[in-house]
Amino acid sequence: MLYNPLTCKLEQVVDLAHEDRVLVDALCSEDVTEVGAKRDIVRNGEVPDKVHLILEGWAARYTVLPDGSRQITAFLIPGDFCDLHVDILEKMDHAIGALTPCRVAHLDPEVLERITSERTALTKGLWRMTLIDSAVLREWIVNVGRRDAYEAVAHILCEMHLRMKAVGLVEDDTFSLPITQEELADATGMTAVHINRTLKRLRSEGLVEQHHREMTVLDVGGLREAGGFNDDYLHLRQSRRGRGHPA
Amino acid sequence: MLYNPLTCKLEQVVDLAHEDRVLVDALCSEDVTEVGAKRDIVRNGEVPDKVHLILEGWAARYTVLPDGSRQITAFLIPGDFCDLHVDILEKMDHAIGALTPCRVAHLDPEVLERITSERTALTKGLWRMTLIDSAVLREWIVNVGRRDAYEAVAHILCEMHLRMKAVGLVEDDTFSLPITQEELADATGMTAVHINRTLKRLRSEGLVEQHHREMTVLDVGGLREAGGFNDDYLHLRQSRRGRGHPA
Repeated sequence: MLYNPLTCKLEQVVDLAHEDRVLVDALCSEDVTEVGAKRDIVRNGEVPDKVHLILEGWAARYTVLPDGSRQITAFLIPGDFCDLHVDILEKMDHAIGALTPCRVAHLDPEVLERITSERTALTKGLWRMTLIDSAVLREWIVNVGRRDAYEAVAHILCEMHLRMKAVGLVEDDTFSLPITQEELADATGMTAVHINRTLKRLRSEGLVEQHHREMTVLDVGGLREAGGFNDDYLHLRQSRRGRGHPA
Repeated sequence: MLYNPLTCKLEQVVDLAHEDRVLVDALCSEDVTEVGAKRDIVRNGEVPDKVHLILEGWAARYTVLPDGSRQITAFLIPGDFCDLHVDILEKMDHAIGALTPCRVAHLDPEVLERITSERTALTKGLWRMTLIDSAVLREWIVNVGRRDAYEAVAHILCEMHLRMKAVGLVEDDTFSLPITQEELADATGMTAVHINRTLKRLRSEGLVEQHHREMTVLDVGGLREAGGFNDDYLHLRQSRRGRGHPA
């Protein structure tokens, strides 16, 4: 594969040997499907027999509450796993829905199992990816629980900017942000009206610019300040350079 | 060690060999300290040189926002790691505070590193523990974002009941719940007044009973219904029995 977002992500957390890269490429290209926007990639209650990995497009993890309200708990971008925890799962405890058309790789859990028994760096890389996902989840709890709409939206834009950059999908601080205001509202526990007002304010303050589904961060420092954003929790390798490589 | 809560937790997700158990016991008993209630076990911004594991007591992960409000993102009980992600960390992006006096094991990251390179089952166990932590974090986002106080408190009580049970710390549906109403408020993004009213309602409905810092769940089914609680996300082994052992 010319571009493998999973390789990008793994290389943020471990050094991969050429053989590891070949393995990851093979794993990701065996069984690939296209999923249309607004379709579920994995349904709630499903017992997935494959591990799903986003190769292209955006998706969301979400839970629907008994009263019908929806809470998004993560946005998934290229290189993100939908259900790496398949082997500890009885069945899915939430759903994954495609927000845009997605290209999804279906990985054979047995092959993944074999790889993780044999390739130490890969196993550590996958585990570290999981640890970083947990750090992101902790930030979302803070975002949903204690930040107002202005801070929460600025914070999420800072996060998506850096996460897209880490998989090579940002150019000149511009990236595709294919999510609706309803989806942003479901991610932050706010109303869509609130989100609309907030995005307007961020634009009028010259922090961001939006053209169709492209977001440009005009003032990275200003946006970070607006969101009270600190990128420590993303554990990006760039910011660790100079400290020597992790083991 | 007669009772090792980490072994309890690992055995929920993998089968351990006798040798694995001996390794875990050795790892957990090398360097143990006592931390007083209300003291930080790991400070925000700290660069921990050991991995901290709770052996006894309750602690909380928390973040303090610029306006001084605090958001708790997890309650930690015996068997929980404070900072397993130490090797991908530049520095802590949040703090861990003891809620009660805690006994904490300080694990040598190099020994942990050696073990995870050599013992496949242990490595998988640790990774699975991380995956389950992520599932818990997703539930907390839903709790904080979309549940009202009554549902959120019932939900958290159901969770703590089952998590304490998984490490062998529940007898007759009674367990130590040493957290204050302020701490419950900080965990759910509510006010302490709200939490107080909610606990009263749960008691008056005969769902729970509280004596000092002991919580008894009188009506497990009723409490689950009150919280819209489904234990899938905790991936407890008991509920997987009969499906055959995980690989």
